[in-house]
Amino acid sequence: MKAPAPLAVSIGDPAGIGPEIVAAAWAARVREKLPPFFAIGDRRAIEAVWDGPIKTLGAPTEAAAAFGKALPLVQVDDPGEIIPGDPNLAGARCALDSLEIAVGLARNGFAGGIVTGPVSKSQLYNIGFNYPGQTEFVAERCGISAINAVMMLSGPTLRTVPVTVHMALADVPRLLTTELIIAKARITARGLIRDFGIERPRLVLAGLNPHAGESGTLGREDLDIIRPAVEALIAEDIIAHGPLSADTMFHAEARKQYDAALCMYHDQALIPLKTLHFDDGVNVTLGLPIVRTSPDHGTAFGIAGKGIASPRAMIEAIRMAGMCAARRLCVASA
Amino acid sequence: MKAPAPLAVSIGDPAGIGPEIVAAAWAARVREKLPPFFAIGDRRAIEAVWDGPIKTLGAPTEAAAAFGKALPLVQVDDPGEIIPGDPNLAGARCALDSLEIAVGLARNGFAGGIVTGPVSKSQLYNIGFNYPGQTEFVAERCGISAINAVMMLSGPTLRTVPVTVHMALADVPRLLTTELIIAKARITARGLIRDFGIERPRLVLAGLNPHAGESGTLGREDLDIIRPAVEALIAEDIIAHGPLSADTMFHAEARKQYDAALCMYHDQALIPLKTLHFDDGVNVTLGLPIVRTSPDHGTAFGIAGKGIASPRAMIEAIRMAGMCAARRLCVASA
Repeated sequence: MKAPAPLAVSIGDPAGIGPEIVAAAWAARVREKLPPFFAIGDRRAIEAVWDGPIKTLGAPTEAAAAFGKALPLVQVDDPGEIIPGDPNLAGARCALDSLEIAVGLARNGFAGGIVTGPVSKSQLYNIGFNYPGQTEFVAERCGISAINAVMMLSGPTLRTVPVTVHMALADVPRLLTTELIIAKARITARGLIRDFGIERPRLVLAGLNPHAGESGTLGREDLDIIRPAVEALIAEDIIAHGPLSADTMFHAEARKQYDAALCMYHDQALIPLKTLHFDDGVNVTLGLPIVRTSPDHGTAFGIAGKGIASPRAMIEAIRMAGMCAARRLCVASA
Repeated sequence: MKAPAPLAVSIGDPAGIGPEIVAAAWAARVREKLPPFFAIGDRRAIEAVWDGPIKTLGAPTEAAAAFGKALPLVQVDDPGEIIPGDPNLAGARCALDSLEIAVGLARNGFAGGIVTGPVSKSQLYNIGFNYPGQTEFVAERCGISAINAVMMLSGPTLRTVPVTVHMALADVPRLLTTELIIAKARITARGLIRDFGIERPRLVLAGLNPHAGESGTLGREDLDIIRPAVEALIAEDIIAHGPLSADTMFHAEARKQYDAALCMYHDQALIPLKTLHFDDGVNVTLGLPIVRTSPDHGTAFGIAGKGIASPRAMIEAIRMAGMCAARRLCVASA
């Protein structure tokens, strides 16, 4: 079986913890059995926080050979001096360049998939970036509608998918539709099959209201919006249960009953995931033509450059991207 | 130091798991070092699911002497035959009688506090009960407004308080007010001092919107409603922080930073609590003149009488009521 191409890891905002956690992941590559990868970003930003070996690549095809001895790096346009913890516009430009190059290389087969380091959205907005987040940018660059790029949070004992994401809680009941739930659930089921090797994924759907609405007495959305979605999914031969009372879905016994939980809004998905897997949660984008993961945390400017940021989530994101990439290649060549 | 009076434990719906978990808690009293308690309910309902010794009391004052050798019981009006798993109106009446007697005995000093077993709200509604839950009934019987009876969920590593409780999610942004948050936080702080012996309770307040609204771009409530509450609490010399991004409040490191988390709606409080403490979470009502706890689960009619229901939460509820009762007595006699 052919190995997938090395993964492209964008370092994110160079003033955040991205450079140090990418470097730390490389340093842990043997112990963690990580697949080959190369960083995309700025050499000086990494050198400012790490004194290990870096090999600046002439072309990404050199990455696999370099990976054993040094952190392979695709250098983007020099952003000038980067001070850890002190973000600026040049750093934001560097982060965006890294992301764009990563997507391009994966689209063209020079990278087996991409792992995206943490960026500062407020900094990106200052340079004209107008997407809700990296995911939507990646989706557009892949030529697909953002609605079809599904964010799944994955930890060792739980996977959750927020059906609605970055919106005020007051907008959720108004914008949640049966069609949206079905669309996200379909992509989730397909992603679990294609990228995670789960033949018959078991989905559960959370209720929107307390106790899933208690038969409509605490809100009608569970009956009128979510239940029809469950019925439609079952009719498509997707294993789906719900709407379930959200508070009793996430304890250890309950989690054994499903492969992914579709949640109706951001915190419903993120609270259980980060409660259980704050340090090792991975954000996976399903529905894209390329493999994309990212560590489920931010730039952490407050601790950047101090050598205390945990690389755990970055390591898990790289490991997961590698597994998904290998599985896709395996399916493609079968 | 004088010991508090034995606790009154209402068995809840006699067709649910209440009878067997109360009996199992009594059977575990030595190993679990539980304080003396007596059950209030129906003898035959307990006998139907348990073959241990029961001592029907002539008066609750006999409970302490009886506790060592048998489960002391205050019998309510005979509900007739009770079939585990098959609730009926007579059982609902029995559950309500048990609750009412428990409150009365605690109000009059014959019980050190009350622990309320699980009831079926739909059954209670059928006999004319018109409170959202047991908590509001207990509050009214204690002569205080339901808004001043605060539900706190308590597990070994986390305490959460839902500021709004049983309402549709769509109603939460509309009904959440600065005044409500302040009222609940004050009662929480006082309860942690009085019943839990925490001298300077540290409160955190969750944001309503994703990432606590991201400076208002994802909803204004965090800035306009929650932040003023935090400021008012601090001005009253209550330690309060927030609004915090709800998804990053509940991991192990974060939980060490506070004694209780005020959450803005039901699932925000219940999801992390039950994710971590599904089997040992206790519902404590703060702000009442009496001590009241209950196991944080329902009647579980589906498994009633099968001998598989875990008594863990009931045991923890009894233990916590005993601790709170001892602390109040200690404060009162100091």
